[in-house]
Amino acid sequence: MKNIDVCITPELLHLHKIDNTIVVVADVFRATSCMVTAFAYGVESIIPVATVDECRDLQSRGFLAAAERNAQKVEGFDLDNSPFSYMDDHIRGAQVAMTTTNGTLAITKSRSAVKVLVGSFLNLDAIVRYLKSQPYDVLVLCAGWKGRFNLEDTLFAGALVERLKDTYMMAEDSTIMAWRLYCQGQDNLIQYLANSSHIRRLQRLGIQKDIAYCLQHDLYDVVPVLRGNALVNMRR
Amino acid sequence: MKNIDVCITPELLHLHKIDNTIVVVADVFRATSCMVTAFAYGVESIIPVATVDECRDLQSRGFLAAAERNAQKVEGFDLDNSPFSYMDDHIRGAQVAMTTTNGTLAITKSRSAVKVLVGSFLNLDAIVRYLKSQPYDVLVLCAGWKGRFNLEDTLFAGALVERLKDTYMMAEDSTIMAWRLYCQGQDNLIQYLANSSHIRRLQRLGIQKDIAYCLQHDLYDVVPVLRGNALVNMRR
Repeated sequence: MKNIDVCITPELLHLHKIDNTIVVVADVFRATSCMVTAFAYGVESIIPVATVDECRDLQSRGFLAAAERNAQKVEGFDLDNSPFSYMDDHIRGAQVAMTTTNGTLAITKSRSAVKVLVGSFLNLDAIVRYLKSQPYDVLVLCAGWKGRFNLEDTLFAGALVERLKDTYMMAEDSTIMAWRLYCQGQDNLIQYLANSSHIRRLQRLGIQKDIAYCLQHDLYDVVPVLRGNALVNMRR
Repeated sequence: MKNIDVCITPELLHLHKIDNTIVVVADVFRATSCMVTAFAYGVESIIPVATVDECRDLQSRGFLAAAERNAQKVEGFDLDNSPFSYMDDHIRGAQVAMTTTNGTLAITKSRSAVKVLVGSFLNLDAIVRYLKSQPYDVLVLCAGWKGRFNLEDTLFAGALVERLKDTYMMAEDSTIMAWRLYCQGQDNLIQYLANSSHIRRLQRLGIQKDIAYCLQHDLYDVVPVLRGNALVNMRR
C-alpha cells in the first residue's frame, strides 16, 4: 500500500525521504492558488525563483513577473499576488516568473523528489486523480509561514488525505493531525480559519475575496508539475 | 496580555524568541511523565544529559541513572523508562541522571529561556497555577519524535492552552491547532491517540499501562524547573 505523509513546513523537509515520492507543495494563501489559476487561464509555464532580483532579471528577458513579500506585491512587477490578477486573456501562452515568501522556496527545496506537483483546493480533484494513477508514495509539503506551521496549508493536506485515505496508509502523526483538522473544519473552512494568523494578516490587507476564492474545491482540471526549472500543466 | 505559543518540535525552536519566555517542555510518552513522577516520589534532582555515555559517567559517580533510546531501556542502567519504576522509596532524596531520545534534548535546547519547566498531564494544574503567577509569555515545546510532530505532546500543549486561553493570547496557528486537537480529543484521549505512531510503537512493547497512566490529568503538585544543569521541584 502506498503511504501519504505530511511535512508541515519546509524547515522539516530534511527529515523526510523524498527520492521515491511525489511531493505536492501547498501554499494556498496564495502562491499555489495563483499558479493553478494561471494555468487554468492558459499560462504556458511558471518559473519559481528564490529572490526578487532573479524575478526582475527574468522580467527584463520577456517574462511576466510576479513578486510577493510578506503577503504584499513588490513594486514594479506585472502581476499582483491575487489569483484574480491571472484571470485575463493577456496571460494566455505567457511565461511567468514568480517569487513568494514561502511557496516558491518550498517548490525549489523539493527538487529531488520523483515529481513535484503544485496543489491547492482549486485543483484538489485533479491532483487526487493523478496521484492515484501513480505507483509512488505521497508527501504533502505545506509551505507554512516563514518556517512555521500554518493552518490553511495543513487543512489542504488534510483534504488530500481525506480523499486518499482508502488507498493510502497514514504512517505519521502529522498526517493524522492534518486529516483530523480538516474533518473538524471542512463544513465551514472560512469560519474555521477566522482566527488564523494569515487570515488576520490578509484581512488587514482587505482581501477576503481572495480567501473565499482560494478555499473553493475542485474548480480546475490543472496539474502543475516541475519540469527542469519550470512548472508546466500536465493536463494541457 | 501574555502570549501562549506552541513549538511542535525542537527542530523549529530557532524560529521562536525565548529570552523573555517561560518554556514548558513536554515529552509525555514518557520522559517528562517519568520526571514528574520521580519528583512526586521525592527525587532530589534530575540532570538531563544528551548521551548515553554522559549518563553512564554520572552513574559511576553515584547518580541513579536512566537511559532510553527508541522507546526502550538501555542495558546497564538503574531505572526503567516507565514512570512506574520511579514509584519506589529507594529514590527518595536521590540524584538522577537521565537521557532519552527526544525529551532531554528539548530541555537542553531551551536553556536560554527565562525558565525551563517540565510539563505532563500529570502536573498540568501545577504548571497552570505557576504560569499564571508569572509575568512572562509561555512557549510549549513539544519534544516530538526524532524532530517530527507527534500527537501526544501536541495534545498536552492543547490542554495547557485550554486552561490558559482566558488570560493568554493565542498568537500563532500552531497554538490554535493544538487547542483544537485537544478539544476534539479530550473526552477520550486514549481512543484519540489509538492510531498515533508512538502509541503503535509503545503497544508493540506492551506498555498500555504506561500510556493510560501518562494521560491522567493533575495527579501531582510538582513543578520541575531547570536550575543550572539540573531539574529540581519548585514545590518542595
